Amino acid sequence: MRHAVILAGGSGVRFWPLSRRRRPKQFLPLGGSVSLLRATFERLVPLIPAERMWVVTSRVHARAVAKELPELSRTRILAEPRPRNTAAAIAWATLEVEKEDPGANLLVLPADAWVPSPAAYRTALGRALTLSESADRLVLVGVRPTRVETGYGYIEPGSRLGKGPARSVQRFVEKPSPARARRFVAEGYLWNCGIFAWRTNVFQEAVRASLPRLARAFAPLAEGRTGAAALERAYRGAPSISVDHGVLERAGNLAVVPASFRWDDLGSWRALERLGREGGYRHGQVVAKDSPGLIAWAEKGAVTVVGVPEVVVVHTPDATLVVAKDRVQEVRDLVGELERTESGRKLVEG
Amino acid sequence: MRHAVILAGGSGVRFWPLSRRRRPKQFLPLGGSVSLLRATFERLVPLIPAERMWVVTSRVHARAVAKELPELSRTRILAEPRPRNTAAAIAWATLEVEKEDPGANLLVLPADAWVPSPAAYRTALGRALTLSESADRLVLVGVRPTRVETGYGYIEPGSRLGKGPARSVQRFVEKPSPARARRFVAEGYLWNCGIFAWRTNVFQEAVRASLPRLARAFAPLAEGRTGAAALERAYRGAPSISVDHGVLERAGNLAVVPASFRWDDLGSWRALERLGREGGYRHGQVVAKDSPGLIAWAEKGAVTVVGVPEVVVVHTPDATLVVAKDRVQEVRDLVGELERTESGRKLVEG
Repeated sequence: MRHAVILAGGSGVRFWPLSRRRRPKQFLPLGGSVSLLRATFERLVPLIPAERMWVVTSRVHARAVAKELPELSRTRILAEPRPRNTAAAIAWATLEVEKEDPGANLLVLPADAWVPSPAAYRTALGRALTLSESADRLVLVGVRPTRVETGYGYIEPGSRLGKGPARSVQRFVEKPSPARARRFVAEGYLWNCGIFAWRTNVFQEAVRASLPRLARAFAPLAEGRTGAAALERAYRGAPSISVDHGVLERAGNLAVVPASFRWDDLGSWRALERLGREGGYRHGQVVAKDSPGLIAWAEKGAVTVVGVPEVVVVHTPDATLVVAKDRVQEVRDLVGELERTESGRKLVEG
Repeated sequence: MRHAVILAGGSGVRFWPLSRRRRPKQFLPLGGSVSLLRATFERLVPLIPAERMWVVTSRVHARAVAKELPELSRTRILAEPRPRNTAAAIAWATLEVEKEDPGANLLVLPADAWVPSPAAYRTALGRALTLSESADRLVLVGVRPTRVETGYGYIEPGSRLGKGPARSVQRFVEKPSPARARRFVAEGYLWNCGIFAWRTNVFQEAVRASLPRLARAFAPLAEGRTGAAALERAYRGAPSISVDHGVLERAGNLAVVPASFRWDDLGSWRALERLGREGGYRHGQVVAKDSPGLIAWAEKGAVTVVGVPEVVVVHTPDATLVVAKDRVQEVRDLVGELERTESGRKLVEG
């Protein structure tokens, strides 16, 4: 049967001061009225029922996941003992699904993307699932680019597979230069949105071939060992690598299903301006004058801006961020600087 | 004997969101670690003992005054039933002082100016008091300008009076154009800092001559009528006018004592940049990068700014203000706009 594995292990603070170590991006209502995690769940429910959804997260966030998704049984929330990137997270979830439903078909996806058109999204994901059921392939969903974007990973599609729209995968390119990105968009490359479909055994085969260290570390779990200590030991031995680098880029049996739905990975505060129609973005009580392009977020309080163009302003009860839109990448450094002082650390932990 | 009357009736919100209707400027620790009111009191104590200090304020702020100045007996805090500008405030205080100490000598001053050099300040105020004791004059303290300032009122000094530095007053000019202000500074005009010294009877005489309506309204109080109803009636009949317009500009017996102490009336957020040495100002937890000239105030929380020059950023737990430094005058309009909504009104009332 079809199961979904939602990866909610992110712990970043690129949306600081709204995001904190204890409340990373997937728990924020970015671009909507519910958290990105909740929105992902709701978007998926018509395709895969809640009973067959799984969430992989960190121990510190397990309770927050349960609060966001009260429909899920606690056994569906997989709390990793330590962060080991996506290859290990998916490998563990695969074992847990297998225990319950041997030979299951998995949809794997991140918890923190923004997708405003759920119908087109579900159509594409359904196609990927269908393909993965009939072919021994690791199937990727590739989003047709809507702009030249240097922050995403691109998939170069290869030859057609069968009669459908699916293609083989020629190569992956991470974060290209503007010139290359422009060429990629013109030549039909696709965005890698981190959504995959495969049967458990096809994925496990690929892990054994490409990441034998991960397969070895998790072997005791695969053989039925259970309990916190066994899990801790497995994770201690697991390599920290993404599924893209560790498995997909080394596999020969890939397929990509091109899809056309609006999608954004919300990589920084600036991403919010893409969600509206006229640039800029406002959340909460905002009063602004002569501040074109303003991205403002008022969390329990108000943001007021006069005469400052192209800026991001975020208010939370204990911190305010003001950053020029073309420097949002530096929020990360700022957070690092804050973490070097005790009072600042409190503002990052949250 | 010498008494001081501190005028603390201001209710403005030019320092919003730090200042609120319930917590106007005189209660804020602008440019120091204690409130401007408290700083004024402490600066004055070596010149006039606390037992002979009086504060005129509004009813809504009387408790805040008592909290800031626990040394004062509650009978020294004069809570006006309604705002009627400075002429009425001083006239009432004069009556109250008279009751206790007929023929007293008054020093009148605002509660909300910034003065970093108390010794020079006290020397000047002492001179004004001394002059007012020997001459039947309304004595003003005139601060020698340290810059061309168009937001202040200027005093043109006239002929010398006696052997000391005191001069007669030729005329007052409010908020001149930049060109005129430049000329005034070059020609030795003085800033009117709102600090006055006079004997009670000299002031009362001037009120009778220049503001007979005020004298009439307060006549029952002068004749010994007491109680809230009498006070309310007196204020209802009093004209709302400043002592400058209502009395000083119409009087012939003025004197001005020139003085050289650093003084600022802190008319807006931007004024804070004059208090430091290198432009900009920071209060509380502030982390900034590439934001030259930043004026930042963090009240119970942190302000962080990246790549935004010449801006004012104020954080309070329920509101953030970001305003271009050359537009701080518009904070007033912003507050007006907020007051038109219910949620905004709460943010202004405080």
